[in-house]
Amino acid sequence: MEFPKKAEIIAVGSELLLGQIANTNAQFISKQLAEIGVNVFYHTAVGDNPERLKQVIRIAEERSDFIIFSGGLGPTKDDLTKETIANVLGRPLVLNDEAFQSIEDYFKRTKRTMSSNNRKQALVIEGSDVLANHFGMAPGMLTEHESRFYMLLPGPPSELRPMFENEAKPLLLKKMGSNEKIVSTVLRFFGIGESQLEADLEDIIDAQTNPTIAPLAADGEVTLRLTAKHADEKETERLLKETEAVILERVGEFFYGYDDTSLVEELSKACKEKGMTISSAESFTGGLFSEWLTDLSGASTLFAGGVVCYTNDVKQNVLGVKKETLDQFGAVSKECASELAKGVQKLTGSDIGISFTGVAGPDTQEGHEPGHVFIGISANGKEEVHEFHFAGSRTGIRKRGAKYGCHLILKLLEQK
Amino acid sequence: MEFPKKAEIIAVGSELLLGQIANTNAQFISKQLAEIGVNVFYHTAVGDNPERLKQVIRIAEERSDFIIFSGGLGPTKDDLTKETIANVLGRPLVLNDEAFQSIEDYFKRTKRTMSSNNRKQALVIEGSDVLANHFGMAPGMLTEHESRFYMLLPGPPSELRPMFENEAKPLLLKKMGSNEKIVSTVLRFFGIGESQLEADLEDIIDAQTNPTIAPLAADGEVTLRLTAKHADEKETERLLKETEAVILERVGEFFYGYDDTSLVEELSKACKEKGMTISSAESFTGGLFSEWLTDLSGASTLFAGGVVCYTNDVKQNVLGVKKETLDQFGAVSKECASELAKGVQKLTGSDIGISFTGVAGPDTQEGHEPGHVFIGISANGKEEVHEFHFAGSRTGIRKRGAKYGCHLILKLLEQK
Repeated sequence: MEFPKKAEIIAVGSELLLGQIANTNAQFISKQLAEIGVNVFYHTAVGDNPERLKQVIRIAEERSDFIIFSGGLGPTKDDLTKETIANVLGRPLVLNDEAFQSIEDYFKRTKRTMSSNNRKQALVIEGSDVLANHFGMAPGMLTEHESRFYMLLPGPPSELRPMFENEAKPLLLKKMGSNEKIVSTVLRFFGIGESQLEADLEDIIDAQTNPTIAPLAADGEVTLRLTAKHADEKETERLLKETEAVILERVGEFFYGYDDTSLVEELSKACKEKGMTISSAESFTGGLFSEWLTDLSGASTLFAGGVVCYTNDVKQNVLGVKKETLDQFGAVSKECASELAKGVQKLTGSDIGISFTGVAGPDTQEGHEPGHVFIGISANGKEEVHEFHFAGSRTGIRKRGAKYGCHLILKLLEQK
Repeated sequence: MEFPKKAEIIAVGSELLLGQIANTNAQFISKQLAEIGVNVFYHTAVGDNPERLKQVIRIAEERSDFIIFSGGLGPTKDDLTKETIANVLGRPLVLNDEAFQSIEDYFKRTKRTMSSNNRKQALVIEGSDVLANHFGMAPGMLTEHESRFYMLLPGPPSELRPMFENEAKPLLLKKMGSNEKIVSTVLRFFGIGESQLEADLEDIIDAQTNPTIAPLAADGEVTLRLTAKHADEKETERLLKETEAVILERVGEFFYGYDDTSLVEELSKACKEKGMTISSAESFTGGLFSEWLTDLSGASTLFAGGVVCYTNDVKQNVLGVKKETLDQFGAVSKECASELAKGVQKLTGSDIGISFTGVAGPDTQEGHEPGHVFIGISANGKEEVHEFHFAGSRTGIRKRGAKYGCHLILKLLEQK
């Protein structure tokens, strides 16, 4: 049969109805399904109550032919999604050996003893395609029953997201065997505001048909999602490339990457390509920059080390900022940023040293407003310092600082 | 009539089904309703489509006697919530003078001219209690019809939230005339798994009535939400305290705080109370611990500084780990963790030095599996080292490490 295109999402968990958490799983799944041409018409959230869940399933079966469930696959008493669906479909639950194995391994790995209620998690509805869970214990599954599809996914986003992207999505695309290909690409920009970008591209955006162009601003970055449809995949690729070229001709200087990449990933890639190493001296960012860089695997090849120099003592004693500099110009100054960058580069022997000093807020510091920051870069025997005035919350200012750090080093590496 | 207590929330807007935004309104309203004793049994999201919205309303009327709508009250063509509900109820829409006045004022205030379609926003279902919108144009309303209540709220959270808290909630309490108070408290635990916690408390949870006990696991932590109902607020407090005491008697060693606090906040609080300062030497956590601590304002009083010692060079040259230690035991070892903690404490002159060394993954290191980590603490002239085997992703292992860091220092401070 042709794979159904009328989908709805049912989230199971009383914590949703109590308002303890938002239903971000429904948002994530909807976005993912839209990308592969599956239309979602309803979201439902229901509590950990088998009777109400049964009624919700019956309603969904009346109006949808693809029903995605999130939550209720865990080991505890109130995790009843799987049992209830099996009961509604009149299909038995059977032990899935791989799932059981991976649960056993999980407990071995974590040196804990497996409690009996964890076996429950390895049960799947008979005849399902099993979706492996690499970030938790409960497997997901896709079951076909009377020309409808039922997909079960775990509740924790840290498990659901990778499972959907790496296991469920490829399986769905295979089942769909659809001939019209929908291909999306996201262009990522930093250093330009959304309204400015839209103004620069107004005529192109207004004339959009295929591909469509959807701007989105988030976290101080702007993205453009280009989505092309065509039976011939080569043609969709051509349409995307064509539009991309027109866009980048105008705002290419702010473009830094595609799709789900980030400034940090691009920075990490660029450093590996050029064989450069980085070290950081972080005051107002408090370790955010190094945390981002080292969150990527293989960071050891490019990150020489970092110092979180929140206090002036550390700035002086560890990074060798001159006492006179601090006395005369203060910690929030061009001069201090320059000495910090040079200091951490020397201390670690890295190719590039970067420093972040400024006011994250909420209070002013040395008479400077929150958001007044200096970013210093030491490389090739010379220092450069960039001054910024950011708006926003303490966390926002720290993030913006760390992102500009990545941006500035990327620009530096491009010149090489 | 007694005001109904079986509620459900219907969010209207195709942007929800496309995954452009999460349904945070449903979360907010649910939390607010729980506080005044209204039980929410379902959340639904549906697109800007009158036919599907009608069906969803009919389903809701079958199972609920209080239906709250969010979204679709705006001036544009696809804002159809109000019209569709009026149509379903067979009640006319009438112009509300105050609402119309405030819309006019809004345009005057913002120096814009009012377009005709804005008049549409001042229409309300005849016989409704009108909820003023002080942060936008579209008013909300509460309509009683055939012993059911229908509440309409605007979609933008910046309008919905103040409207609910300041207009809708007092009105509901008045209608309820109820004196039954509902009080909730959340107990937060770290260092124990959800299934273990439930096993330890099984009999208590099974016997739960008032207060109810709802466990929730997220991010390696477990929370228990206790919710008590009683006419006398003092009595609800007593019921909560009583149950809390029974719970903490069994699993108190893992309890760290109430409601929306976090391990880092509790650590920060404890350090300030005891006047203690902390420094960190972070290898596999890469700065995460210091980033968390410094993300809280006022961190300068307790965070003396940190070193991200990703490489052995920095471990040796900056933090004074002995070459022999690294050669003989490796960087991922009890011995290295101990010297790192001592080293950073000395370097910064802090009261407590903490170190994180281990394997974040995905690859093994020095023959150790990902998740094998050591956390060292140096305080009062002696070092202690704790060994762990974490499961999960690279990011998950780093987070768990940083959280255990907070947990261990908190335990240390409790002893003092």
